[in-house]
Amino acid sequence: MKRPLILVTNDDGISASGIRNLIRIMNDFGDVVVVAPDGPQSAMGHAITIDSTLRCDKIVIYKGSQKEYACSGTPVDCVKLAVNQLLERKPDLCVSGINHGSNSSINVIYSGTMSAAVEGALEGIPSIGFSLLDYAHDADFSESEIYIRKVTQSVLDNGMDTGVCLNVNIPKTKEDQAIKGVKVCRQASANWEEQFEKRVDPKGRTYYWLTGKFVNYDKGTDTDEWALANHYVSIVPVQFDITAYPSISSLNKIFSNE
Amino acid sequence: MKRPLILVTNDDGISASGIRNLIRIMNDFGDVVVVAPDGPQSAMGHAITIDSTLRCDKIVIYKGSQKEYACSGTPVDCVKLAVNQLLERKPDLCVSGINHGSNSSINVIYSGTMSAAVEGALEGIPSIGFSLLDYAHDADFSESEIYIRKVTQSVLDNGMDTGVCLNVNIPKTKEDQAIKGVKVCRQASANWEEQFEKRVDPKGRTYYWLTGKFVNYDKGTDTDEWALANHYVSIVPVQFDITAYPSISSLNKIFSNE
Repeated sequence: MKRPLILVTNDDGISASGIRNLIRIMNDFGDVVVVAPDGPQSAMGHAITIDSTLRCDKIVIYKGSQKEYACSGTPVDCVKLAVNQLLERKPDLCVSGINHGSNSSINVIYSGTMSAAVEGALEGIPSIGFSLLDYAHDADFSESEIYIRKVTQSVLDNGMDTGVCLNVNIPKTKEDQAIKGVKVCRQASANWEEQFEKRVDPKGRTYYWLTGKFVNYDKGTDTDEWALANHYVSIVPVQFDITAYPSISSLNKIFSNE
Repeated sequence: MKRPLILVTNDDGISASGIRNLIRIMNDFGDVVVVAPDGPQSAMGHAITIDSTLRCDKIVIYKGSQKEYACSGTPVDCVKLAVNQLLERKPDLCVSGINHGSNSSINVIYSGTMSAAVEGALEGIPSIGFSLLDYAHDADFSESEIYIRKVTQSVLDNGMDTGVCLNVNIPKTKEDQAIKGVKVCRQASANWEEQFEKRVDPKGRTYYWLTGKFVNYDKGTDTDEWALANHYVSIVPVQFDITAYPSISSLNKIFSNE
């Protein structure tokens, strides 16, 4: 059987520990091509580069059987460049991550990691975003590996529903608390309560830092937040049709009267 | 009755003709505060500024009763700053646009205009993104005005379903073809077929420009693309819960076997 062609990207940049671990794992599954940002692109959401030029250069500084390209753009740019310019055929799988930090619940819409996976799904490629709930640069990805292998094998074996990708979040484990397994979930209804920290620069001009506290309003036990809090890996299927279908009929009533 | 407090933003930048028209219209509906990017932020999706500082300064260069702030960040940053830092109370309405160019179908996920509206919905504010299907800097917004007033009044009168905002696209009219009315729609299943134009810079190094052709695969007559092609204003309700609910049960079968 032909080895799968696997596209790997992320939003923390091509040299991040998370993607280095993901590349190492993916080399066991197929022929890996890495197209990843040349620096951090966190919280870039589904941003793309339309008004400026893109750089994308082959690099050979890392060990392994993979081919690698460092790109000046966003994670979504990386997927578009890979599929439309760099690769000779459509990949069999697109994986993004391993993100340093959670992309559960509402974080999914801000996440460059997940936007790359959504873009993969848009291109018709089975796609997965992996995130570990540890923001540290030197996060320990070792316990993640078994679940990344399991989900990857499962997607290679079973494919993916059209227009859908997976948002996989992996809890940070402590010595006394191992991961219990995986849970298929919905996105929790949670949000950030933001505060801006106002400061004054050396020239006397005001600037702001975004800070915030994550608040989960959702009491459901079928959510990603519940799964993660209870030491499960959460798997949320994600789609790019963001129509709010239940609102169509009420809006029709309002606008048909006019 | 108290005048509504209206937050206005966009992604083309605070000096764009589209937002200047939108501010003028909104001044008739309520007390307007503008918090908009200080330059173009198109195709920024749901990007936010987390690793650098934000500037946001009051400006007084434009005529009218509105208060205005120019912000160094993305459209989503503008909404967060307005709600959490600049405004004394939660706005009654958040409007974004008028975008110079379409945000119909898949464009919604790349659009800074619509991400600002989605962020408004996240903050619990009835929110609307307006876009005109004309990319020109000097686009004619005159025929849009009646529909912008109609949709705005309707949202002020009826409110909005929780977690939902409106994506309103307005066709470009020609002399022989007036707008026929409004249609409530779903997001069409359409996409961009991208091509990268490869060039060489004066130093001999390769760079790329993103180009592409929009292709509508969707034959439905209930889509935004159908409405716009048939000279209707399209109104799509949009949500930020992007869980692909229909895929949960099939994934449960796959992962419960492991």
